[in-house]
Amino acid sequence: MNTSQLLCANVHENRWENIAQTVRHEAKRSLLNYFAVGFAGAHDPTIEKLVATYTSFSAKQQASIIGRPERTDMLNAAALNAMSANVFDYDDTHLRTVIHPTAPIAAALLAYAEVNRVSGRDFLQALILGMEVECRVGNAISPYHYNRGWHITSTCGALGAAIAIGWLLRLSPTQLNWALGGAANQACGIVETLGTMAKSLSVGNAARNGMLSALLAAQNFDGPLAPLDGVRGFLNVMGEKPDLAGINDKFGEHWEAALNTYKPYPCGIVLNPVIEACLQLSARKEVVHNLLQRLQSVEVTGQKLLRDRTDRPGVQTGRESQVSAQHAVAVSLLSGHAGLAQFSDAAVQDPANRALGAKLRFTVDDTFSIDAAKVTLHFVSEPSVTVVVEQARGSTGRPLTDQDIENKFKTLSTQADTGCDQDALIKAVWEIDALDDVGALMALARQS
Amino acid sequence: MNTSQLLCANVHENRWENIAQTVRHEAKRSLLNYFAVGFAGAHDPTIEKLVATYTSFSAKQQASIIGRPERTDMLNAAALNAMSANVFDYDDTHLRTVIHPTAPIAAALLAYAEVNRVSGRDFLQALILGMEVECRVGNAISPYHYNRGWHITSTCGALGAAIAIGWLLRLSPTQLNWALGGAANQACGIVETLGTMAKSLSVGNAARNGMLSALLAAQNFDGPLAPLDGVRGFLNVMGEKPDLAGINDKFGEHWEAALNTYKPYPCGIVLNPVIEACLQLSARKEVVHNLLQRLQSVEVTGQKLLRDRTDRPGVQTGRESQVSAQHAVAVSLLSGHAGLAQFSDAAVQDPANRALGAKLRFTVDDTFSIDAAKVTLHFVSEPSVTVVVEQARGSTGRPLTDQDIENKFKTLSTQADTGCDQDALIKAVWEIDALDDVGALMALARQS
Repeated sequence: MNTSQLLCANVHENRWENIAQTVRHEAKRSLLNYFAVGFAGAHDPTIEKLVATYTSFSAKQQASIIGRPERTDMLNAAALNAMSANVFDYDDTHLRTVIHPTAPIAAALLAYAEVNRVSGRDFLQALILGMEVECRVGNAISPYHYNRGWHITSTCGALGAAIAIGWLLRLSPTQLNWALGGAANQACGIVETLGTMAKSLSVGNAARNGMLSALLAAQNFDGPLAPLDGVRGFLNVMGEKPDLAGINDKFGEHWEAALNTYKPYPCGIVLNPVIEACLQLSARKEVVHNLLQRLQSVEVTGQKLLRDRTDRPGVQTGRESQVSAQHAVAVSLLSGHAGLAQFSDAAVQDPANRALGAKLRFTVDDTFSIDAAKVTLHFVSEPSVTVVVEQARGSTGRPLTDQDIENKFKTLSTQADTGCDQDALIKAVWEIDALDDVGALMALARQS
Repeated sequence: MNTSQLLCANVHENRWENIAQTVRHEAKRSLLNYFAVGFAGAHDPTIEKLVATYTSFSAKQQASIIGRPERTDMLNAAALNAMSANVFDYDDTHLRTVIHPTAPIAAALLAYAEVNRVSGRDFLQALILGMEVECRVGNAISPYHYNRGWHITSTCGALGAAIAIGWLLRLSPTQLNWALGGAANQACGIVETLGTMAKSLSVGNAARNGMLSALLAAQNFDGPLAPLDGVRGFLNVMGEKPDLAGINDKFGEHWEAALNTYKPYPCGIVLNPVIEACLQLSARKEVVHNLLQRLQSVEVTGQKLLRDRTDRPGVQTGRESQVSAQHAVAVSLLSGHAGLAQFSDAAVQDPANRALGAKLRFTVDDTFSIDAAKVTLHFVSEPSVTVVVEQARGSTGRPLTDQDIENKFKTLSTQADTGCDQDALIKAVWEIDALDDVGALMALARQS
């Protein structure tokens, strides 16, 4: 068997009983975080335009859009929900690959589960298997793939969605491989589009076309024998010297899907320790007092990567501000918060944020880990104040707690103001493996 | 202006009056050939499965499928018609890039023109501009792109379809660039899928998603400033040291779209001179007489590339036989024909074809051009017979005549047995620039 075939056999042979409780629980955390960010994105201008166009090309009104009243057919719902969950890049992160793993797969599964009866246990197993394939294939072509300019969430997400839906459809190993072929042939997404509306299209395609490939494979729509490892297959075309062995090594024992992380702030994750330090500083009385009158400079110390990725003065849009240390430092110091409102177009235009951001100075110190940062406020005729964050919240070493994720969900769904029953949806996610019909989840998440 | 912006400005500034008659006429030839191969593919098993699934996800019944009774929404019709025209790889070829240029673009335009009133002149200009962008971008990343494993018809086709529809929508240069961004972010298709059903998906996506990107751009759905030449844009991600200058050089004067060629046989084009020689041989009385009893070997002389691409004994499917010299030589010698029936699963299973194909011997001679070949039949106790083809029909030097393309159209639409009015459709294509409403074309091409 080639690598693709072995992967499909591994997926086909997987048994619920062999998935550890910790892995199942991490998948529930991923799903709750998915609903949180789905609510957040539901009324973003990008999503509004997409909903208007995609609903006009929808066959039926069967599947819901999180936080919205519209219904569409399965394929369009899969696309729209994946895009809204990812539109702020506030969704989860598989750190080794920088894949946002849940959006393309959960969106496809939930759409399918509204049209077809799916048990909670099957849903969770399909989600885990889809994420696992997505992240393992991602590992095999990282870091080349993303560095080359491929939007890895979109490309690998299509494969994961195909596997997740294909597994639910009880495809044979051969049919699963055909589903991978269809998804590999539709994998797309380039990094140049980040920060623009166009970025979302490939994320939606991942969910939509992964699902479509599985539906076609169920009709014996065939594909190549080695869609992943063939000479002109996904791994060789989109990767460079791909690590084939890792794709199947310890499949079913070691779970990449369980290494998922969740963002406390709607920003590039390298900013996590910086923002955390600023929020701590903003809570100190002597800082608040001196910040506007006596601040001379803000010194941010961290890895070179932190500066390389986030040294962006003078950003113009909320979207850009999510990867600007200048803006993140200013807004979190001044407001004491770091939520969506702090990274909006309005916040960027605030002269106070611009003035404070201009005072930022980077100090590169590569003894810092990527999860760590030091922020020092230098004042005129006052002592400096320093906060060091050794390991930021949201890293694998210091993950968000279940309560943190619930709070994130409540904040974002409250902001979305859809009137959804938050407690009922939270409870349904934590107890999903006992549900007879997962369609109930979207009934709670849509705007009635 | 960057390369993408300049390209969009060039498209926007193009005037009908500045497109030479020869270029307009070549576009009509491309369109007639498109209808021919659209009829050919309409009932292929791959297309049957796709029609069944795609129609179940179609919003409206507005746009027709060539040679079939179904109607779908614009996006699904664009996808299905692009796929059926390309399913046999019997469509046109831009030789420098091996792009099949017309299918993704004409399919999108015809679907659009059934739902919106489009004049024949506008249609033809949009087709020419879409093909031009498709082929110029293809040139910029050739031969790396296809060699790497990208299905160039699919990837560049998406860009061409976006430009064609965007031009019809009267998008501004900025909006055209956004349409390119949406299409670049959805460009997909890998060569590993050739010979399988999965191949068609990316061809359909090119038409569908190119059109979708243009529709979204018209709603001010934005994209990156440099979707093509940005650091992580289409050309750098999917190409290697792309030739940026060629994309805009002499735009509106030199037309790549006019360098299109059309296949006389449903095979890899390197087989054209070999098949032509065999058809000439099969017409000779002394050959027919001796072929079955006294043939010792068939010696095929040509470029090394001919052997590398087509030395495929023992093929199992009609699809594979299209790139097998063994099969092509046997079936054209024995039947005196080289149409779709000669490259079917049934023809491959015929023991006579297998026995004759086993007698093929290659002689490599790199003094032959790629359009040339020599075929010699060696007999037991009879003199050998040789035919040399210096320049095969279907090459740029010896293009199919208008009458050849009409005959191809008639043969394929007769085989499809849809009862379409062949003469009316042929006339409509040749006179398209006088049509007020191009929707009439698809009314003639669908099965009533």
